[in-house]
Amino acid sequence: EVGVGGKNDVVVDPNPVNIGWDSHRAVDKAPDSLVRPGDGPDGNYPMRARFERMLREAQISITSEIEKIDGGATFREDSWVRANGGGGMSRVLADGAVWEKAGVNLSVVYGSMPQEALQAATERGVDRARGMAPGDRVPFFACGLSCVMHPRNPHCPTMHFNYRYFETDGGVWWFGGGTDITPSYLNVDDMRHFHGTYKDVCDRHDPTFYPKFKAWADRYFVIPHRNETRGLGGIFFDDLNDRDPELLFQFARDAVNSVVPAYGPIIEAHKDDPFTPREKDWQQMRRGRYVEFNLVYDRGTVFGLKTGGRIESILMSLPETARWEYNHQPELGSPEAEIMDAFKHPREWV
Amino acid sequence: EVGVGGKNDVVVDPNPVNIGWDSHRAVDKAPDSLVRPGDGPDGNYPMRARFERMLREAQISITSEIEKIDGGATFREDSWVRANGGGGMSRVLADGAVWEKAGVNLSVVYGSMPQEALQAATERGVDRARGMAPGDRVPFFACGLSCVMHPRNPHCPTMHFNYRYFETDGGVWWFGGGTDITPSYLNVDDMRHFHGTYKDVCDRHDPTFYPKFKAWADRYFVIPHRNETRGLGGIFFDDLNDRDPELLFQFARDAVNSVVPAYGPIIEAHKDDPFTPREKDWQQMRRGRYVEFNLVYDRGTVFGLKTGGRIESILMSLPETARWEYNHQPELGSPEAEIMDAFKHPREWV
Repeated sequence: EVGVGGKNDVVVDPNPVNIGWDSHRAVDKAPDSLVRPGDGPDGNYPMRARFERMLREAQISITSEIEKIDGGATFREDSWVRANGGGGMSRVLADGAVWEKAGVNLSVVYGSMPQEALQAATERGVDRARGMAPGDRVPFFACGLSCVMHPRNPHCPTMHFNYRYFETDGGVWWFGGGTDITPSYLNVDDMRHFHGTYKDVCDRHDPTFYPKFKAWADRYFVIPHRNETRGLGGIFFDDLNDRDPELLFQFARDAVNSVVPAYGPIIEAHKDDPFTPREKDWQQMRRGRYVEFNLVYDRGTVFGLKTGGRIESILMSLPETARWEYNHQPELGSPEAEIMDAFKHPREWV
Repeated sequence: EVGVGGKNDVVVDPNPVNIGWDSHRAVDKAPDSLVRPGDGPDGNYPMRARFERMLREAQISITSEIEKIDGGATFREDSWVRANGGGGMSRVLADGAVWEKAGVNLSVVYGSMPQEALQAATERGVDRARGMAPGDRVPFFACGLSCVMHPRNPHCPTMHFNYRYFETDGGVWWFGGGTDITPSYLNVDDMRHFHGTYKDVCDRHDPTFYPKFKAWADRYFVIPHRNETRGLGGIFFDDLNDRDPELLFQFARDAVNSVVPAYGPIIEAHKDDPFTPREKDWQQMRRGRYVEFNLVYDRGTVFGLKTGGRIESILMSLPETARWEYNHQPELGSPEAEIMDAFKHPREWV
C-alpha cells in the first residue's frame, strides 16, 4: 500500500510522470523532509510540509510504542528520495515477539495526472480541473502515512491505517484516511473499545463523522467475490474538503494519534492467549482473504503496483504467511462461523 | 482460474449474462456433458461437445495418473450446472503425500459480451463482430480445462496448464492454451525435459509453434512490478484460428495429453529429495509471487473474480500456503540467486 492509497484516490495513469519502479534512490539517513523547499508554511502550499511533519511525528511515536508492546524486535528504517522531490521512509518490524510483520510507511509523491483521472479521483465529480486547458496534465502532491500490523497470535487482530493529504498545484485539495481492524475471532468487548475510541475521536470534531465514516469503511473493505468484509471495520473517509483545512488537519492528527490507544490494549490483552493449531490455521486463511482484498481491490495497492513506487513498501501490507484451503466452510455454531456472520453482516459496535 | 482464462480472452463485462457468483447449482453426479443439446457433432456447433469430451477424458486420465504418483490423497470431484447450460466439474486433491494442493477444472460457459469486448478479446483486432448491428451483444460458448499443481517438496516445481475453445454463436472461433512450469530451484536437465517434451509436441504439428509459443509464455507469465517471470515458462498460445479447426483440435489434444509425460518424471525424480528449512522458506516466497501474478495479472482469474463464476474453482490455483518477507534478497552466488537470474532473463532450454 502506498501513501496515496484509497478508493477514490488517484486512478491508474498509463504515463505517470516521475513515478516509476526504478525512480527512487535509497538514502542512508532519513531527510528532515521529503517535501520540496517552498512547499512549507511560508511558501505557496502551507499544508504540505505541515502535514508531512505531523505524519512523521506520528510514525515515530507509533513505532516506538509498538516496539515497547512487542518487547522483541525493533523497526528498521529505509529511506529513499526521488529526483524531482518526494520519496519515502519505511519502518518495518519483522519477526517480532508479538507481531510477525508490522510496517509504517511515510510517502510523499510529486506527480501529474490527466484531468479525467483527477475527476475520477474525487467522490463528488465536481469540476476540479477548473481553469485548465483541455489535455493539460494536473501536477499534484500527495503525502500519506500507511500502516499494517500482523500479529502472530490468532486472538490478536491485524490493524491497518492510512492518513493522507492530496493537493494539486492549482489548489484543489482534500484529506482522506481511516483506521480499521481485522480480527480472526470475534471479541465484542474489543470491538467496542476499538470502535468506541474512534467514535470519540470523530465526535470531538463532528458528530456526523462516526456514523458516516463507519459505514464508509463497511462499504470499502469488502471482498465482493467472497460476499464478505475483510475485517470488522473502523472508519474510512476520502475527498474531505468541506471546511477549513485547519479543522480537517486537526481531525486527521487526532485520528492518527489514536491508533495506539485504540489498538494497543487489545494486543496487550491477547498477546499471550493460548491457541490451538486449528485457530492458527483459521487465522492463516483469514490472512489469505487479506491478500485477496489487497491485491485485487485495494486501490492504493493496485495503483502502486501498476504505476510504480517502491514495491517493497507497497507490499509490506501483505502478511508474512497466508493459507488457502479448497472450499473451507466453518462448522455451524463454531467461533469461526460466529465471526463469519459478522463479516457477512456488518454490525454496529457502539 | 476459469476455463476461459488467458491474456487476450474475454475482457471484463459489467453486465455478464447468466454468469454470476450465485448462478451455479451443485449437482451430486457429474453430467455426461455440460454442453447444450444440439451443440454436438450432429448439431450447429460440432466442435463444442467434441472439445468438451476430449478435455473431460484428459481430466480423468491426468487426475488418475497424478493420484498414482501422489500415492496418498485422491481427487475429490465437485460438479455444478447453470440454468441456461454450462457449468463445471472441479477435481481437487488436497493434503496429498506429494502435492499439498492440485486442481483440475473443466468449465463450460454460455454467456454474451459487448462487441467491443469481443474485439478486445482477440489478438489481431480483426472484425469479429461482422454482420452484427451496433450495440448487439455477442452470445458465446467457452470450454476449458485448467490446472494448477503445487507440490510440497521445494525441489518439485509447480505446474499449470489451460486449454480452451471459444466460439460465438455467429461462428467466430479460436483455440488457446498452454502448459508452464514454476520451479523454486533451477535444474537444467528438468527444464530440458519439460520444454523438450513440448517442443516435440509442437513440432509434430507445426515447426513454427514452439519458438512462437515459448516466447509467448515468457511474455505472458511476467510479474511486471517485480521485473521477473513467474516461473520458467513453457508454451502459451491464444486466438489460434489460422487453419482447419480439426488440425488445431489435434494439436490441443496432443498438448493436454502431454502434461503428465512432461511433468510427471520431474516429480518422480524429486519428490523425496531432502530439503532444508531455508529451501522451504524460499519455496514459500516463490508461492507468494505466484499469488501476486494470479491475483493481479492473470486475466482468467481477474475475469472470474470480477464477473462471477464459482469462486472456489477460480481460486483453487492459489497455493495452500505462501510467504512474504520484507525486502528479501537472495545471497550472491546462492541457488536462490541462480534461479532469480533465470526469472529475470528468460532462457532457451532446448
